Amino acid sequence: MAKDDGVTIIVFSGDMDKLIAAFSIAIGAAAAGKDTNMFFTFWGIKAIQKGNLTGKGLFGRMMGIMNRGGINTIGPSRFNFGGIGRWMFKKMMKSHKITSLEELRQTAIDLGVKLLPCEMSMQVMEISKEHLIDEVEPSCGVATMLEKAFHSKVTLFV
Amino acid sequence: MAKDDGVTIIVFSGDMDKLIAAFSIAIGAAAAGKDTNMFFTFWGIKAIQKGNLTGKGLFGRMMGIMNRGGINTIGPSRFNFGGIGRWMFKKMMKSHKITSLEELRQTAIDLGVKLLPCEMSMQVMEISKEHLIDEVEPSCGVATMLEKAFHSKVTLFV
Amino acid sequence: MAKDDGVTIIVFSGDMDKLIAAFSIAIGAAAAGKDTNMFFTFWGIKAIQKGNLTGKGLFGRMMGIMNRGGINTIGPSRFNFGGIGRWMFKKMMKSHKITSLEELRQTAIDLGVKLLPCEMSMQVMEISKEHLIDEVEPSCGVATMLEKAFHSKVTLFV
Repeated sequence: MAKDDGVTIIVFSGDMDKLIAAFSIAIGAAAAGKDTNMFFTFWGIKAIQKGNLTGKGLFGRMMGIMNRGGINTIGPSRFNFGGIGRWMFKKMMKSHKITSLEELRQTAIDLGVKLLPCEMSMQVMEISKEHLIDEVEPSCGVATMLEKAFHSKVTLFV
Repeated sequence: MAKDDGVTIIVFSGDMDKLIAAFSIAIGAAAAGKDTNMFFTFWGIKAIQKGNLTGKGLFGRMMGIMNRGGINTIGPSRFNFGGIGRWMFKKMMKSHKITSLEELRQTAIDLGVKLLPCEMSMQVMEISKEHLIDEVEPSCGVATMLEKAFHSKVTLFV
Repeated sequence: MAKDDGVTIIVFSGDMDKLIAAFSIAIGAAAAGKDTNMFFTFWGIKAIQKGNLTGKGLFGRMMGIMNRGGINTIGPSRFNFGGIGRWMFKKMMKSHKITSLEELRQTAIDLGVKLLPCEMSMQVMEISKEHLIDEVEPSCGVATMLEKAFHSKVTLFV
């Protein structure tokens, strides 16, 4: 049953380029028929939000300001000069017919990749269930993530 | 004996958020009864220093200046606007009763997580044994770290 | 035959310090007799370029401007104040007789580490085969990389 050859990706980063890499690997693994789980923690949680990240408290609001825009305003980890990095990256991807982050996420969902939101990150960043896209699994902690990892052949920290 | 199902975490980053993630995963693994090792290399070595990072040579001093303050002055990898990122992060963690990095490290130690300092990093950054907290294992190289990794089910680069 | 105990390193980062870490781990793994593969993707592809990164299109040229200089001008991910980070790092490495990134790469090649360029990254960044060093394997995609990973004991995302 549990073949212990799945893929678990701990998505810590909220940078566009790293998210593209994470989703691409997840899609590849799912396409190869592997049980694939992505655990979204810290800044990575941004990748599974509906649109804007908004919290009720002061810090949540501050995070909202700094993080606003959802998956389409996420910048690459380098070369993000006043947004030109993201613009250029998207342009390059488009002109080469590479799918967008949103399309990648949808493909991952369609292929059965499980998206696990980190409970603690949601708490600290004041994100509730309704802020996340509908396709996510119930939120969970490190213990659940590690259980997936112990039944995986490949576990990555992105 | 060697069940080959441990966890090895290569801690390369010195950023507060990544260190919190690394220690949280290590604690989860140790709590699940797994043999857990953390290999501190490059900027990660900061997480196992006593207080200030200080070297004897010029470069060690320069590193000391840029790195001073030990584990409590480490900033998150994003949003560290003149220190506000760290302050906000700590505040958020406190208001949500999330433990501090220092407490996380102590919990990891209490649960038997082994902290391995990277020999080469200590040399390059001019850090000696007495600069590190007492609980660390003897310093070692990539070969020893890899041996742990080859007996682990999960190996992460953070 | 396939002992499934190799090492696969996904080299996403183009930062000098992370590349040093990646090559050091690869060398350690190869020296231990393990089948070792490095998959260069996104910014990591810079580490296997001949000299300057230059593309034919506008975006390739823009990338070339921002990335020019090949492996010897790559800066560390932190402390790269107008290049002083790289200079200091190299100086520290030299005074401690740590080998340079270029020497590390050559050692990895000599020990049989396989260098796999990511097909999609080459396309997006407008890099062709002749821009890469001669020792690289044929370019490939995530599927091929994952196949290596599924036959590895340790897979890292750097």
